[in-house]
Amino acid sequence: MESVAIVGVGLIGGSFGLALRRQGFAGPILGVSSSGAIEAALELGAISSRSTLEEAVESADLLYLAQPVDRILSTLEQLAAPVASRLRRRPILITDAGSTKLRIVQHASRFLPPNSFLGGHPMAGKERSGVEVAEAALFQNRPYVLTPERGFSHPFEPAFRNWLNTFGARVISLDAAEHDRVVAFTSHLPQLLSTALAATLESASDPLFSELHGSGLLDMSRLARSSPALWSSIIATNRDCILSALDAFSTELAAIREAVERDSISTSFVRANTFSATLRK
Amino acid sequence: MESVAIVGVGLIGGSFGLALRRQGFAGPILGVSSSGAIEAALELGAISSRSTLEEAVESADLLYLAQPVDRILSTLEQLAAPVASRLRRRPILITDAGSTKLRIVQHASRFLPPNSFLGGHPMAGKERSGVEVAEAALFQNRPYVLTPERGFSHPFEPAFRNWLNTFGARVISLDAAEHDRVVAFTSHLPQLLSTALAATLESASDPLFSELHGSGLLDMSRLARSSPALWSSIIATNRDCILSALDAFSTELAAIREAVERDSISTSFVRANTFSATLRK
Repeated sequence: MESVAIVGVGLIGGSFGLALRRQGFAGPILGVSSSGAIEAALELGAISSRSTLEEAVESADLLYLAQPVDRILSTLEQLAAPVASRLRRRPILITDAGSTKLRIVQHASRFLPPNSFLGGHPMAGKERSGVEVAEAALFQNRPYVLTPERGFSHPFEPAFRNWLNTFGARVISLDAAEHDRVVAFTSHLPQLLSTALAATLESASDPLFSELHGSGLLDMSRLARSSPALWSSIIATNRDCILSALDAFSTELAAIREAVERDSISTSFVRANTFSATLRK
Repeated sequence: MESVAIVGVGLIGGSFGLALRRQGFAGPILGVSSSGAIEAALELGAISSRSTLEEAVESADLLYLAQPVDRILSTLEQLAAPVASRLRRRPILITDAGSTKLRIVQHASRFLPPNSFLGGHPMAGKERSGVEVAEAALFQNRPYVLTPERGFSHPFEPAFRNWLNTFGARVISLDAAEHDRVVAFTSHLPQLLSTALAATLESASDPLFSELHGSGLLDMSRLARSSPALWSSIIATNRDCILSALDAFSTELAAIREAVERDSISTSFVRANTFSATLRK
């Protein structure tokens, strides 16, 4: 794995380039992105040069797709012809950093040759997006899920996993459908609750609501700052799991509402205390 | 206002004592609390000596009730006789730091003479409780709601407000019922959502849930660590407002669920973005 191309040089793509450099990767790191992102990424040292998608497929050993989910899906379609032609000469490993996995993995197996695509999801993020806030340490101590299909094997896979390990990421292999089921509860549900909470408060149009609050409301509304553009493609590609998570939550909330009416709220608090403690172990 | 007694020397009561001292209050600060809290508070300098409730009423100009809501209610009952007797000689101002206000204000007007009680709610807190984590800067830049009854007047009120101003608190006068309506949305609703989220994830009994998550779940589950004992009396004294807030939220969440099914989630995100930006202005 001597050369890398990053498609979509934002927070994740930029951090991937910076982490490679910090860990001693010396080969070229091409960037395929908008002009503004490319300029900022060159300045930060996250990439070494600008490239088109076709040039990237020609010359890179690893193609790292770090776009929003809908863009990854259309990139996979664009890659069909150039990757097929490239594979007649040398292997290329294509991986992604999309927030949902099943649809992407299915799309990849439809448009790319077998044993060329490895789905990935670094569970690292920030309140702000863009290469300007990228950092080499982004993946450190964070889960990095890989979703190899059954029997997947690629000559560059061990090297790629090894780089992730040097970043300090906790690399976990998981079935793509299982990944999507879990993140529906641990990532997509919290996002929608934060959005619903902030939208509820906004709808009340009461200026006191943004004045009289403790730090709890700041925590609970941080995710509500997320961009609808990013999330609409996450939701579109994980709809059934998200609906299940929303329904499980609504059942719990209805029980809590009943407990509030009956003055017997403590069992939910005790279960919630247990989970929160486990999370922080 | 030459002497102060703090009843319930935990995070809030202890921070009140430390803030007074830091701002130059030189008089005695009595503490009425459990032995462990008293010892820790003496060591930190948050109080100058231990006292019984009766001694505190005898000698303090300001009685600061910093207990959980249910304890404040029973302290108000205990105060009826000693405060009536004390008022025959010198004025005493009684104030509290309880999280709900209407029930406390009503209880105070039932058990205490007119113009002796001023309801209060410092909207400052921490993940951990207890005098060990008290700090002089706790009230700085935080809202501090006071709920004077119509026509309230007390010789020590200007001095008390002045101390709160020197702490850097944003002092806001509000009707007690209005306070409770607002905090149902900005504090009690976020608490119950965090609890419901963590309880939902705990109920699933899936070890992957505490392993595969980003920082968003940590934010969203921080409040879920709160103690059921503290919250049951908050809920019991603000039930109707909390039920209204839960219902407004459930309506919003149902709309979001429908939008997830229809793939048109963005209007909620845009409203949520607006509120979150306002909050951080």
